[in-house]
Amino acid sequence: MPFTKMEGIGNDYVYINDLKEEIEDLAELAIQVSEQHFGIGSDGLIVLRPSNKADFQMRMFNLDGSEGRMCGNGIRCLAKFIYDNGLWDQKSIEIETLSGVKTVQLIFNDQGEVTGARVNMGQAIIDTALIPITAEEDQWINQAITIAGQAYQVTGVSMGNPHLVIFQENIKDLDLQALGPCFEYDTRFPEQINTEFAHVHNRQEISMRVWERGSGETLACGTGACAVAVAGVLNGLTEETIKVNLLGGTLTITWDRSDTGHVYMEGPARTSFTGHYFPQVH
Amino acid sequence: MPFTKMEGIGNDYVYINDLKEEIEDLAELAIQVSEQHFGIGSDGLIVLRPSNKADFQMRMFNLDGSEGRMCGNGIRCLAKFIYDNGLWDQKSIEIETLSGVKTVQLIFNDQGEVTGARVNMGQAIIDTALIPITAEEDQWINQAITIAGQAYQVTGVSMGNPHLVIFQENIKDLDLQALGPCFEYDTRFPEQINTEFAHVHNRQEISMRVWERGSGETLACGTGACAVAVAGVLNGLTEETIKVNLLGGTLTITWDRSDTGHVYMEGPARTSFTGHYFPQVH
Repeated sequence: MPFTKMEGIGNDYVYINDLKEEIEDLAELAIQVSEQHFGIGSDGLIVLRPSNKADFQMRMFNLDGSEGRMCGNGIRCLAKFIYDNGLWDQKSIEIETLSGVKTVQLIFNDQGEVTGARVNMGQAIIDTALIPITAEEDQWINQAITIAGQAYQVTGVSMGNPHLVIFQENIKDLDLQALGPCFEYDTRFPEQINTEFAHVHNRQEISMRVWERGSGETLACGTGACAVAVAGVLNGLTEETIKVNLLGGTLTITWDRSDTGHVYMEGPARTSFTGHYFPQVH
Repeated sequence: MPFTKMEGIGNDYVYINDLKEEIEDLAELAIQVSEQHFGIGSDGLIVLRPSNKADFQMRMFNLDGSEGRMCGNGIRCLAKFIYDNGLWDQKSIEIETLSGVKTVQLIFNDQGEVTGARVNMGQAIIDTALIPITAEEDQWINQAITIAGQAYQVTGVSMGNPHLVIFQENIKDLDLQALGPCFEYDTRFPEQINTEFAHVHNRQEISMRVWERGSGETLACGTGACAVAVAGVLNGLTEETIKVNLLGGTLTITWDRSDTGHVYMEGPARTSFTGHYFPQVH
């Protein structure tokens, strides 16, 4: 089976072209290929399928076979995959996801190679009831709360999934292994929560670390970077366009707050290797 | 860069043909390709080089870039790699390693495909001073010792690296994370030790789990399986040829005790995928 292994700021998936819809059990295939010793080794599987709502459909599966709604780092790579394989020749691609149709703009270098993409990630949601956060307040912007006996100032944002952003000076020495679960499983977050610890360098640049619900600390979280950018504007700390440095690389996030309310994410997309996979025969 | 990803009972390496000796920094390449998110993802890198002592030379590097002396699961795959790439057309291959020249016999299925190999792993060493174990006794065969306050009957064997074998009924429920380091760092083992917990099903079959020094519990340890087979014979529990079941698969081990004293390991070799790697440009 031919495949391409791609990564966007360290978020790595196996990409396959299934426009003919020949693969029956995508979840089982995701489990197989994600395992490194006998399969390929990845964060999961992203499958290109035909769409009757958009130019293409993206289906993404985590390494445990569960289907994800959307992945910002993954959709940039999928757009490059589509273009590099000669399946599309325009700079803008509409891709259907379980989170709706997303518009992706390809970014090229001087040699005409796709090096990244810009994705419309949709509207940021800041109503606590919709994030969801169980709270008396309608919004949590620089809200004082206590977690595991410690006081924090937090901002709640949903980008389709729930985020809590905490601005603080020192994020390098944080013990996220200990801290993350205290946020994730706090009863005020009925669907658990992703938590971002963010350090503001200046009005155009932030560095962050993220604890993802169900995954722990990860190299990169696209929606988390969007949430941090939105929280930065809401707290008056940053401009509407900023660079967000994650452990795996840098994204540029724009919150078009006054006009559409949409959040745009721009970042790299890279092919690590192409190959032919030979499944283990049992 | 073209490469092949292969596995032997779950021990997976990236294999490359460098017979022209064009790659300068193999250790750095090993670190890069072993990392899953930006590289390929593997237990390490195995490089085919020319030899003036044998038919070919194997150089193997762990994921941290350190060079290994020899890898039983790796050398089986390297032999298949050599044959599959048309570099050799005989069933026996002499391969130089840092542990000396090893003779590998290819195993074929009815379609003429290489499915595994048999490797002469050399002589088993059972003198405590040579293993090395700091002890008054010349050999440790069913020796009573105490580790972390618990009594064990242990057998010491070196297959080029030091092993301690413990036969017991229940190995499934063992807390190896807690137990392994107590053996590994006991002061009687000046070069630390690999520890195998083995359950004898009958005189032809053993199941085992292994704690590898420096690595923790692993799916497979070729020299560990050899040490278990040798210890089985020394303790009068098993025949000279037995099946050893590890977490990642099954090996057949023969200790030719009376004649050469050599230990032979037979097991599968499989190609998971072939590919072209595109290094990250910094």
